[in-house]
Amino acid sequence: MRDSLNIEPVGRVSSCFEEKFGVPRQPRLAPSSFGTIQLLAPWNTPDAVDGLEGVSHLWVQFAFHLSPSPKSAKVRPPRLGGNRKLGVFASRSPVRPNGLGLSVVRLEAVERNPKGVRLHISGHDLVDGTPVYDIKPYLPYADAIAEAVNPIAPTAPELIPVLGIDVLSLPRHLAQLIHEVLSQDPRPAYQLPDPARVYGMRLAGGNLQWRYLPCDQSPVGLRIEVAGYSQDDKPGVDNA
Amino acid sequence: MRDSLNIEPVGRVSSCFEEKFGVPRQPRLAPSSFGTIQLLAPWNTPDAVDGLEGVSHLWVQFAFHLSPSPKSAKVRPPRLGGNRKLGVFASRSPVRPNGLGLSVVRLEAVERNPKGVRLHISGHDLVDGTPVYDIKPYLPYADAIAEAVNPIAPTAPELIPVLGIDVLSLPRHLAQLIHEVLSQDPRPAYQLPDPARVYGMRLAGGNLQWRYLPCDQSPVGLRIEVAGYSQDDKPGVDNA
Repeated sequence: MRDSLNIEPVGRVSSCFEEKFGVPRQPRLAPSSFGTIQLLAPWNTPDAVDGLEGVSHLWVQFAFHLSPSPKSAKVRPPRLGGNRKLGVFASRSPVRPNGLGLSVVRLEAVERNPKGVRLHISGHDLVDGTPVYDIKPYLPYADAIAEAVNPIAPTAPELIPVLGIDVLSLPRHLAQLIHEVLSQDPRPAYQLPDPARVYGMRLAGGNLQWRYLPCDQSPVGLRIEVAGYSQDDKPGVDNA
Repeated sequence: MRDSLNIEPVGRVSSCFEEKFGVPRQPRLAPSSFGTIQLLAPWNTPDAVDGLEGVSHLWVQFAFHLSPSPKSAKVRPPRLGGNRKLGVFASRSPVRPNGLGLSVVRLEAVERNPKGVRLHISGHDLVDGTPVYDIKPYLPYADAIAEAVNPIAPTAPELIPVLGIDVLSLPRHLAQLIHEVLSQDPRPAYQLPDPARVYGMRLAGGNLQWRYLPCDQSPVGLRIEVAGYSQDDKPGVDNA
């Protein structure tokens, strides 16, 4: 008895994170992140979300569609600097046996339109185009375990100082999003950055660029200096 | 682009809950419940769980392999008495588009033996034989959301009084498990039980029987009177 299962997407994510690089490594690390889940047929109907109003958070079961399959039962979680290996079931690495992801997201609004249903979400870590296989309401009495312990990742990662956002004169929400995303230090942790090297990522319909500079006050000995943000003419995510 | 996904079990549950009837409707409602997840090839190796020691809770992504597919986008969650319908994405009903379940369980021990790896779990709501598609460590800083709100199920369900367990002279842990399971009131909520009717379920290697009697002090106007528990000669779950 193998119980192999064929699953079909019930929705698809549109996200301010347009590429894999720079996506926060857990949900809730960038509360200003935004996006939508467009429901897909035959679930693209108001019936499927009846009663969802007032629910603050959702579980999203999705596929890490841009990540490779694991080559062995041990993986290198980004959190541990890419040097230490860990059992795949002791890690939330996107490199997983069935490629299944699990994220909690904030539900901002349920949009019913002539084309169907879109869920507006925030505080997520989902890359644009992510296929979604199930959506469930967060149940505080069952899911929020105050006494839970995880010695590998006891707290959120330490933040890296980020400077130079204010000189860009961006809308406040976008400036906040950039700050939250860069504070997570998107670079692969084993990479020792050259101050001359400019890093870049797509974010919320624009190109974000930054450098790393030495910094004594930083937990990793580095700070980020934002080098620029050039927004496209049309926004990357329809967040209307 | 449909992104249909074929997933294979990475483990299989052995559970004190030997049949679907009577399984608690969420994890953590019966803390004394016990079971194991036997890892399956090619993940049945100590490498896959390296670093898992000290992690208190796990997310289990599984299939509701005994539940039917939904006939529409609205379902009847047991919590709402089977009378009110709710959108499938507003509910944790086991009747779901892809049949995918999500439960948090307590990790009691990681057993490495010549046949591979078994995870000993407790406080779960998984029926015996459940196929498991992924296991992830609970991350308190990301997963435990103190401020989350769910107006449909704001608190754990009210408990029904249970009498008559002590006269059975059972081992303490088993008596406690029976109490926790029956307190959840396993009967379909729309069923008005006749006091003469004896209900039964398989639990932890034995047959449990009970009746419903009127009770003014109970939130549902009923209490449970345990009628008997006959244990098999051999235990149903190898919990050694």
